[in-house]
Amino acid sequence: MDKVKVIEVKESVFADNNAEAERIRRRLKAEKTFLVNLMSSPGAGKTTTLVRTIGDLGDKLRIGIMEADIDSTVDAETIASAGAKAIQIHTGGMCHLDAGMTEQGLDELGADAFDLVVLENVGNLVCPAEFDTGAVKNVAILSVPEGHDKPLKYPLMFQVCHALIINKIDVLPYFDFDMEKVAAYAHMRNPDLELFSVSAKTGEGFQAWENWLLAQARAWNG
Amino acid sequence: MDKVKVIEVKESVFADNNAEAERIRRRLKAEKTFLVNLMSSPGAGKTTTLVRTIGDLGDKLRIGIMEADIDSTVDAETIASAGAKAIQIHTGGMCHLDAGMTEQGLDELGADAFDLVVLENVGNLVCPAEFDTGAVKNVAILSVPEGHDKPLKYPLMFQVCHALIINKIDVLPYFDFDMEKVAAYAHMRNPDLELFSVSAKTGEGFQAWENWLLAQARAWNG
Repeated sequence: MDKVKVIEVKESVFADNNAEAERIRRRLKAEKTFLVNLMSSPGAGKTTTLVRTIGDLGDKLRIGIMEADIDSTVDAETIASAGAKAIQIHTGGMCHLDAGMTEQGLDELGADAFDLVVLENVGNLVCPAEFDTGAVKNVAILSVPEGHDKPLKYPLMFQVCHALIINKIDVLPYFDFDMEKVAAYAHMRNPDLELFSVSAKTGEGFQAWENWLLAQARAWNG
Repeated sequence: MDKVKVIEVKESVFADNNAEAERIRRRLKAEKTFLVNLMSSPGAGKTTTLVRTIGDLGDKLRIGIMEADIDSTVDAETIASAGAKAIQIHTGGMCHLDAGMTEQGLDELGADAFDLVVLENVGNLVCPAEFDTGAVKNVAILSVPEGHDKPLKYPLMFQVCHALIINKIDVLPYFDFDMEKVAAYAHMRNPDLELFSVSAKTGEGFQAWENWLLAQARAWNG
């Protein structure tokens, strides 16, 4: 297994997380680094989605990944095996990352060397949505087995995201998942949400997602 | 749709949540009510598991359900349609329930009229594990599509639970999920964890889970 750097981050000391997040975005703009905050339930497929995205876009963008988890280094090892620079962030039991914790990760990763950095947040549909990490765009993944009612139950996550990836569409025949309903519920929370239906396992639907990501990164990096 | 009672609970004012949880357990013991705190990721199948359990055990136990969510009443409506008394608890955006919030639910439900009360916690593998709700037993559901590595990433959830239900085994052929690994990882966190493999969709494996639940409830209620 690849050795990955593990950093233990501490909860931010900043009183105003939003101001700190704005400061991080100014730094990212100056350094020409596009930061995506990727959120989902546990097991929705964040890491698998990243592995395929790295494989497809690795010749167009320099990509660095920050994997956040309560414990373990399995995701960072998977990403490192896929050929991208990855660090593992341990949150000391915390259910989310704030702006200060994100910046500790950016410093350890050496974010200015990358065109695209993805923060894979702790698997959780509640707490991560409450904290601006300083990312340029928030992206959520909802997987087919979780059910199409999630935007009804976890409103904030869908409100704060710019794009929603519906993953695991390869198993649609085995679940009662209504694509029209999930789109309607998600747009009820956020009419501007971009929607992508994909299978990280088979690659179906990835081109639209990757075109969007590439266009967003290029627009930000100038 | 069935009308369900919705209560908005406030964060507990008690400084010592653990003491409050112990007090609730003494009350439950006196009232002969067995309280289970059911936890999982979003979409792992808590409600579907409860609907089947109510159908199978409804003639042996008087069952009441408390559905906790950030928003929506879809789960409580589903439970009410299955024939059990259900109330919906809204957490005001909070990612978990503490003992005081749980007791507000018990009071609204009229818990002393039931042999078994299940608190369906907010879908989240992190925060709910940090708070003793006053339940007699903690039960977690992990579903096959989430992956067998979850006990590595979310240690506390598996440490605090008495039983772990592996759900959605009907879709095992479509996912890379290793039953031996998940059992090993889970028992690494908690050697005493009872394991049940089920499909809430087909009913496979439910008898062992329901036998355990029934025996636990009868032992507690005396």
